Amino acid sequence: MDFEVIHSLLAGGNQSKIVLLVMDGLGGLPMKEGGLTELEAAKTPNMDALAKKSILGLHQGIRTGITPGSGPAHLSLFGYDPLKYIVGRGVLSALGVDFDLKKQDVAARGNFCTVDEQGRVTDRRAGRIPTEISERLCTILNEKVQIPGVEIFLEPEKEYRFLLVIRGEGLRGNITETDPQVVGVTPVLAEALDESSEKAASIVQEFVRQAQEVLKNESPANMLLLRGFAQLPDWPMFPEVFGLRSLAIAMYPMYRGVAKLVGMDCPPASMSYEEEIDLLEEKWGGYDFFFVHIKKTDSYGEDGNFENKVHEIEKVDVLLPRILALDPTVLIITGDHSTPCAMKTHSWHPVPVLLNAKMCRPDGIDKFGERACLHGGLGVRFPAYDLMPLALAHAGRLEKFGA
Amino acid sequence: MDFEVIHSLLAGGNQSKIVLLVMDGLGGLPMKEGGLTELEAAKTPNMDALAKKSILGLHQGIRTGITPGSGPAHLSLFGYDPLKYIVGRGVLSALGVDFDLKKQDVAARGNFCTVDEQGRVTDRRAGRIPTEISERLCTILNEKVQIPGVEIFLEPEKEYRFLLVIRGEGLRGNITETDPQVVGVTPVLAEALDESSEKAASIVQEFVRQAQEVLKNESPANMLLLRGFAQLPDWPMFPEVFGLRSLAIAMYPMYRGVAKLVGMDCPPASMSYEEEIDLLEEKWGGYDFFFVHIKKTDSYGEDGNFENKVHEIEKVDVLLPRILALDPTVLIITGDHSTPCAMKTHSWHPVPVLLNAKMCRPDGIDKFGERACLHGGLGVRFPAYDLMPLALAHAGRLEKFGA
Repeated sequence: MDFEVIHSLLAGGNQSKIVLLVMDGLGGLPMKEGGLTELEAAKTPNMDALAKKSILGLHQGIRTGITPGSGPAHLSLFGYDPLKYIVGRGVLSALGVDFDLKKQDVAARGNFCTVDEQGRVTDRRAGRIPTEISERLCTILNEKVQIPGVEIFLEPEKEYRFLLVIRGEGLRGNITETDPQVVGVTPVLAEALDESSEKAASIVQEFVRQAQEVLKNESPANMLLLRGFAQLPDWPMFPEVFGLRSLAIAMYPMYRGVAKLVGMDCPPASMSYEEEIDLLEEKWGGYDFFFVHIKKTDSYGEDGNFENKVHEIEKVDVLLPRILALDPTVLIITGDHSTPCAMKTHSWHPVPVLLNAKMCRPDGIDKFGERACLHGGLGVRFPAYDLMPLALAHAGRLEKFGA
Repeated sequence: MDFEVIHSLLAGGNQSKIVLLVMDGLGGLPMKEGGLTELEAAKTPNMDALAKKSILGLHQGIRTGITPGSGPAHLSLFGYDPLKYIVGRGVLSALGVDFDLKKQDVAARGNFCTVDEQGRVTDRRAGRIPTEISERLCTILNEKVQIPGVEIFLEPEKEYRFLLVIRGEGLRGNITETDPQVVGVTPVLAEALDESSEKAASIVQEFVRQAQEVLKNESPANMLLLRGFAQLPDWPMFPEVFGLRSLAIAMYPMYRGVAKLVGMDCPPASMSYEEEIDLLEEKWGGYDFFFVHIKKTDSYGEDGNFENKVHEIEKVDVLLPRILALDPTVLIITGDHSTPCAMKTHSWHPVPVLLNAKMCRPDGIDKFGERACLHGGLGVRFPAYDLMPLALAHAGRLEKFGA
């Protein structure tokens, strides 16, 4: 839905409260023919009781058949069509390590790699060196690389991956990557794709030159490759578009990062689900919209640990009465994508969603699960980015369109 | 879905096999109130058993309420939005008669018609002359019309209709039609709509002049009208877009033609369903994607022969175990459009579809039929062109979108 249309219909605020409770990777699959999914197997008496008074369905984050990454999946839940609002890889890396990216910063995703004596890449991932080695190399580079007029930040990600951020005046990130994507050739020179990116490109070239010097006696990672140069996008911000004072409550950097990207307030990370709900209670008066993120459902999905994923869902069910006690006007319970234990990875399967509100039209479904949601009033495979207009509508925050 | 997005997510190939089994005109209607549709009436124990392990739904080829022609309906099944990928009528005519159209050929759909002594059209279809008369007239014209520098081909279609193809260097087909669409006026002069089509337009004018001379003493068809000038479209090819070595198995020219149009390999027409499955078995190792077309369900629909349409569906059900024995990664069973016997023509009604794959999320439906599919996990009235992304996803051939 067009943001301008939504924004033009905003009713000017009321006392309503909207809670978006996201169990990461919620959607699942049976482990064997005729079996139950994780959500179907979980004992969720509170969610099932709520389902009876709610409207259910299955959404998809990107498009039919497309498996969402975490960033785009959350953008879609926040109302942003992820095919229209595309985040550069460098920015996603920054979000993932909780780096506080500023407007003019240029960020890139880096790989430590191995080159031979002629400087030709022999291993683009340096034998997948462990994170600790990357940490050490980042520390050395942060100390030794010096470029006048700019600050350089390197932060390790997982294994051979790291984040590079260049901070300075007048930088633009429209720069070609240095990763040749194949072995047997030397890294490519970073080049500006437009005039305004020339300053940043020459800084990247100088950075690479110095880094090569610093790393040359290391082994196996004696060089680096850079790609996905990007800056914070210039998007309409969530609080303005939807007229909602918005708070993100999450334990992991990526999710706080995506929320920050669209302008939500992000207090420091909570340490447990209980702390997340504590924070929700504490901040209840000061905000209109609350994004509450539950991580471990996805982690156990990635591990293929069916029992633990079921248990995480049940833990959330136990906490649900605390959320309901706050009497939210609209409560949405869903996931960002599916992470079936049977696949140990994100998948394209549609994601169960429950929308509860006083003014919702109940659909007669009294269980929260993939198959039950097939028969719900929200339908199957609707775009996740339709949830925000639905939330606003059920919160009485949208005027009618036309006279 | 944008082809570029799909193409950018291709995972680089694997051993998976995708079979798209199309029963033409599969969708139907009850013949009387409270009755069953053709598919519901058919005894399909194999499809029903498969349904239990599959995900079902109803697709539509073009848009809601729009009755698809065979060409656009198949393009949609192949992943091409038929409102975006439009085939000229002349090209469709060529596909329908198995004419081997070349890149620079200009094709048009022709009508034999009747004109009076002043050359004014009195019957645009020459009293719907039988196909044999059209055949004779095409033969005469092929012999007598001579235009230096180009080859002219006329091929009879059904009744008064024929195909005209002009072959030569530097031809472009952006030409106005000669059919005035009303009687009482003379045929219109074919004119170029752009500079590059001027050569072809003048050839068409000369062709019409000579044809009028050749036909003037025939009766009742003593003239012809031309429309739908077109050339082979310059589209992204199916095997490249989806990264699939693709084979079309069909008995009738139109379907082999549409498959050829998008770049699938098309061996000579099979003579029976059994031969189609023989070919599928024989070619199994050499391809990733197999389009298998079943024609007669549609033919009996057009005849209004309910019993025979039911029987054709049952014949396919009997062959299904041979397809399943090949262990396809993804098997889609569907139609291209509905051809209800009650209507004796194509219709807009959504088309039942069954998608079976190890990683599909079963929806608890255990029968393949229109009403059963209403409750399936694929939903109702979804675009047929979403089936290809779904097939690729279930075949493990797509990377996730974003990090």
